[in-house]
Amino acid sequence: MSRVFKTERLVRHGHTDPAGFMFYPRYYEMIAGVIEDFFRLELNRPFGEMHLKQRVGLPTVNIETNFYAPSYCDDVLEFSLVVEKIGRASVTLQITVTCGDEQRLSNRQTIANVMLDEVQAVPFSADLREGLLGFLVREESSV
Amino acid sequence: MSRVFKTERLVRHGHTDPAGFMFYPRYYEMIAGVIEDFFRLELNRPFGEMHLKQRVGLPTVNIETNFYAPSYCDDVLEFSLVVEKIGRASVTLQITVTCGDEQRLSNRQTIANVMLDEVQAVPFSADLREGLLGFLVREESSV
Amino acid sequence: MSRVFKTERLVRHGHTDPAGFMFYPRYYEMIAGVIEDFFRLELNRPFGEMHLKQRVGLPTVNIETNFYAPSYCDDVLEFSLVVEKIGRASVTLQITVTCGDEQRLSNRQTIANVMLDEVQAVPFSADLREGLLGFLVREESSV
Amino acid sequence: MSRVFKTERLVRHGHTDPAGFMFYPRYYEMIAGVIEDFFRLELNRPFGEMHLKQRVGLPTVNIETNFYAPSYCDDVLEFSLVVEKIGRASVTLQITVTCGDEQRLSNRQTIANVMLDEVQAVPFSADLREGLLGFLVREESSV
Repeated sequence: MSRVFKTERLVRHGHTDPAGFMFYPRYYEMIAGVIEDFFRLELNRPFGEMHLKQRVGLPTVNIETNFYAPSYCDDVLEFSLVVEKIGRASVTLQITVTCGDEQRLSNRQTIANVMLDEVQAVPFSADLREGLLGFLVREESSV
Repeated sequence: MSRVFKTERLVRHGHTDPAGFMFYPRYYEMIAGVIEDFFRLELNRPFGEMHLKQRVGLPTVNIETNFYAPSYCDDVLEFSLVVEKIGRASVTLQITVTCGDEQRLSNRQTIANVMLDEVQAVPFSADLREGLLGFLVREESSV
Repeated sequence: MSRVFKTERLVRHGHTDPAGFMFYPRYYEMIAGVIEDFFRLELNRPFGEMHLKQRVGLPTVNIETNFYAPSYCDDVLEFSLVVEKIGRASVTLQITVTCGDEQRLSNRQTIANVMLDEVQAVPFSADLREGLLGFLVREESSV
Repeated sequence: MSRVFKTERLVRHGHTDPAGFMFYPRYYEMIAGVIEDFFRLELNRPFGEMHLKQRVGLPTVNIETNFYAPSYCDDVLEFSLVVEKIGRASVTLQITVTCGDEQRLSNRQTIANVMLDEVQAVPFSADLREGLLGFLVREESSV
């Protein structure tokens, strides 16, 4: 049974534009924070410790997003994150964002596991792979 | 002969993270500015005037991005924008970002033409369609 | 007995720079959010409703900030807000930010109460003034 | 005769809020970029090289800002920077922002010269002090 990581974000005044809509680059900043919370809260990898002490980073290599409806100031957005695919040194995440019954966007994002000093991808550690597996949404070859 | 809209951006200190890499949501903010410059400089549509006076907006409905290599503070990025497809009330743009000889990312982005007060897509005006056609990268049906 | 509005913020990866320090403009975005939470949670003024329906805004007219020590990724910052002075159509807030026992910054910020369509300052409504009075830090003439 | 460093910024769609006003934390990000340009273009200190190679940073220790009038999308803002005071290991800058004949804000900002690895203030190098002196607005004791 795969798990789903859920967290909420408030759409704030400064996120929104003269149309009243959330300015879309702000979604990517929220998503970056949601992925950070996933690693911190579910996988025991706070980003400060990971980047500065372990010298490991998770650069994004691919993003695909569909935006379905605008978000407005005071909206409470629910982010749901699952793992679509685990590679040797990368993982693909699926994130959906809803507000009440309305879907606002869906996002697929692949991030690599990289040693920062060499800027080189390396396999996930065993415990991190194990943690990610708990959120894998369906059985796929995890090559 | 299709035209290419080109513009440069400097990667600044505040765009970069403790790994020294540009924080990827910052690319989307730069891209939003590049699209804004394209409409302002090439299509005679300054965004302030367009949003506040004409009450027309260009919300993003789809994004696909591949990130090939990190960017660092002091890098000068060259953005090249062409039109991939013109629909009735939406347009798909291709943006590539290079630094010297190195490609940093490629981005495909579809934006809709929307009346803000009704939040409803409407066909591009004739002059805007004409302007976009000048940057169409290859002959495709423009349904 | 004056009240203090308190709220916390996590310093995230994308807030920090290659020195590992939080990039200082990010503090102002956090502070904007803290003031927004104060009005939403304590004064019954969600910013979306206030700006879009009541057409009232709270532009900042003055800021003074002392930064005492850097903040780092994973730090949990505590924001404490009190009211220093209530004018006819403006209010001065004091915000201090600590992390554990260490003070990171102190900020004094004056915001005006403005009708957005006329861009004109107007007196606070009676209930808003009453709400602000509960957080007034010391007795001063509230001219 | 003291020099003034001048540079322009366009107010963009994503800088502005549902009131149509520029969201004030965006000014601080622009100011950070203007100071970065001043050091890069006038003082031969690109921030990437300075932070990553020389391991020197310029954290802000104090800010005072008066905001006089709102800015709107499509506004071209002119930033003018002079040096108010040069200390042993810190410098105070004055920045004014105008749009046409209208002053939008004035900002006084003190930044320290810090060795990043020790997080310790150190005296400016002779050439940097010399460069800063060229922009000193009036004769004051430079303790």
